[in-house]
Amino acid sequence: MTRLEPAQPAVQPDEIALAMDRIRPYVRQAPVTEVRAGGLGLSHPVTLKLELLQHAGSFKTRGAFNRTMLAAAADEIGPAGLIAASGGNHGAAVAYVARQLGLAAQIFVPSTSPEIKRRRIESFGATVNVIDGYFDDAFAASVVRQADTGALMVHPFEHAAIIAGQGTMAVEIDDQVDEYDTLLVSAGGGGFIAGQAAWVQDRRRVVSVEPVTSRCLQAAREHGGPTPVTVAGVAADSLGTVQLGALAWTIVQSYVDESVLVTDDDIRAAQRSLWDEFRLVVEPGGAAALAALQSGAYVPEAGERVVVAVCGSNCDPNSVM
Amino acid sequence: MTRLEPAQPAVQPDEIALAMDRIRPYVRQAPVTEVRAGGLGLSHPVTLKLELLQHAGSFKTRGAFNRTMLAAAADEIGPAGLIAASGGNHGAAVAYVARQLGLAAQIFVPSTSPEIKRRRIESFGATVNVIDGYFDDAFAASVVRQADTGALMVHPFEHAAIIAGQGTMAVEIDDQVDEYDTLLVSAGGGGFIAGQAAWVQDRRRVVSVEPVTSRCLQAAREHGGPTPVTVAGVAADSLGTVQLGALAWTIVQSYVDESVLVTDDDIRAAQRSLWDEFRLVVEPGGAAALAALQSGAYVPEAGERVVVAVCGSNCDPNSVM
Repeated sequence: MTRLEPAQPAVQPDEIALAMDRIRPYVRQAPVTEVRAGGLGLSHPVTLKLELLQHAGSFKTRGAFNRTMLAAAADEIGPAGLIAASGGNHGAAVAYVARQLGLAAQIFVPSTSPEIKRRRIESFGATVNVIDGYFDDAFAASVVRQADTGALMVHPFEHAAIIAGQGTMAVEIDDQVDEYDTLLVSAGGGGFIAGQAAWVQDRRRVVSVEPVTSRCLQAAREHGGPTPVTVAGVAADSLGTVQLGALAWTIVQSYVDESVLVTDDDIRAAQRSLWDEFRLVVEPGGAAALAALQSGAYVPEAGERVVVAVCGSNCDPNSVM
Repeated sequence: MTRLEPAQPAVQPDEIALAMDRIRPYVRQAPVTEVRAGGLGLSHPVTLKLELLQHAGSFKTRGAFNRTMLAAAADEIGPAGLIAASGGNHGAAVAYVARQLGLAAQIFVPSTSPEIKRRRIESFGATVNVIDGYFDDAFAASVVRQADTGALMVHPFEHAAIIAGQGTMAVEIDDQVDEYDTLLVSAGGGGFIAGQAAWVQDRRRVVSVEPVTSRCLQAAREHGGPTPVTVAGVAADSLGTVQLGALAWTIVQSYVDESVLVTDDDIRAAQRSLWDEFRLVVEPGGAAALAALQSGAYVPEAGERVVVAVCGSNCDPNSVM
């Protein structure tokens, strides 16, 4: 039996550097902030990348801009504009991008997506279609509609331009933080973590954080490739992907160094501590990476310089207090 | 009739530099973030200093650390620890400082102070005494108690060490922002703005922002010195001071370049826009400086580089949504 070599990474650093130049006028360089030992219940210092302050409330805006601007440059966008399916954050990002670039947008969201995310999508002027069920149901409906309208499908993670766009966060961190060893990133479909890993490659350690209730990246590592998992839990609307993206896997398999899991209780505790100590409203998926440190799922070595992505804000503040 | 020369400024830049060195291990360097033209409803770019991410939710922590650490070094703190009167933010800051330095603390708050601020003070382990009425009533009660206990009175603004501590925010901004022209700061008793003005002196313009409903700094400028005003409005719990501090005035009279007013509606609109575009929960007093730009109360000249202090987070998120 022959063992297959890992596939070429779907995204190279130069594509991420070009994405950064392309989207820079449109995205925020979200600030970083240092937390000293003792803060957030941690016995070691940590740097937070406050990506939740991004336009539309999450990192998803980066990939959506890069994908859409590349397609526009290639004249691939017709009068129907953009179409996407999303648990919420990607939909809000695509709706925001469409508004900023003067395009129409239709977003398909599952009925399980929180009301606050739907309202945010609508606030950017996009049409929201609510589909009974989960992300896969919404995605199936969006594919049918796309065949009718010819709109540009902006997939939440399974596209090289999306992954390259998400990776611009790590480009910024290199500009903002003198040196660091390890980046902790939450993972759903894998587009976000793949972007970071494709940029830093072997220069830094990249650690994946998933809820125990939706662990498709860890499952892919165990299985040797993407494989379906069941999906549930408090972060399901942002991290609840059944199967890791195939493109993300080409990067994750080489450049994600470790995969850890956190419980729903760990995530809730991380949300509460970010509220208590910083008055930041962070959604479950956005707090998962911090939860890995607080729960001990990931224990840095002495002197290890850790950056944590705090990457989404779209939730009801009353749920974090 | 002889015209009096302005009094010597009560605080010199070297005292602020020493305060920065003293408190640096205990305070956060709150991040700054750039907002491009078009963001937050503004037609020009602006830099936000996110001081609301400070420990205990406002800049007050800076002054409270400096005052307490200087007093501790001079052996002025007995077993009764610290005592303070406060609409809320200063009380939370003193309670936080007491906890971090292992001191007891009693905080006197007026019954008009929001419940959320009282809870925050208690969360740091201080004893809260609620006094019927307004800040002046709470302050009077704290003075009586102080005579009994001998605790160190930490006044919210009328002390050089408090003003020097608050001024460390401007020291940080010099490190974080390459160059800028104008700093917009909200004003209550004047300790915060005096600290910034004492640091930047004539190097930058300092603009004071007050609610039309509590305008003791503007009144002092018109009157030629501190004079009482009536106090009301949405920001009264943080900015509602009857009379500008005498020490603050020694600085304000020389180094505050302009004084503008905003309405309660302007403040509410600024709070909502910070929530809508950044998902930041900002209390009325913390959003007032931004409101001055959004309402046109302050109109920068072409190319003027403006920094806005967003300086307090202690309010109910449901009030900003």
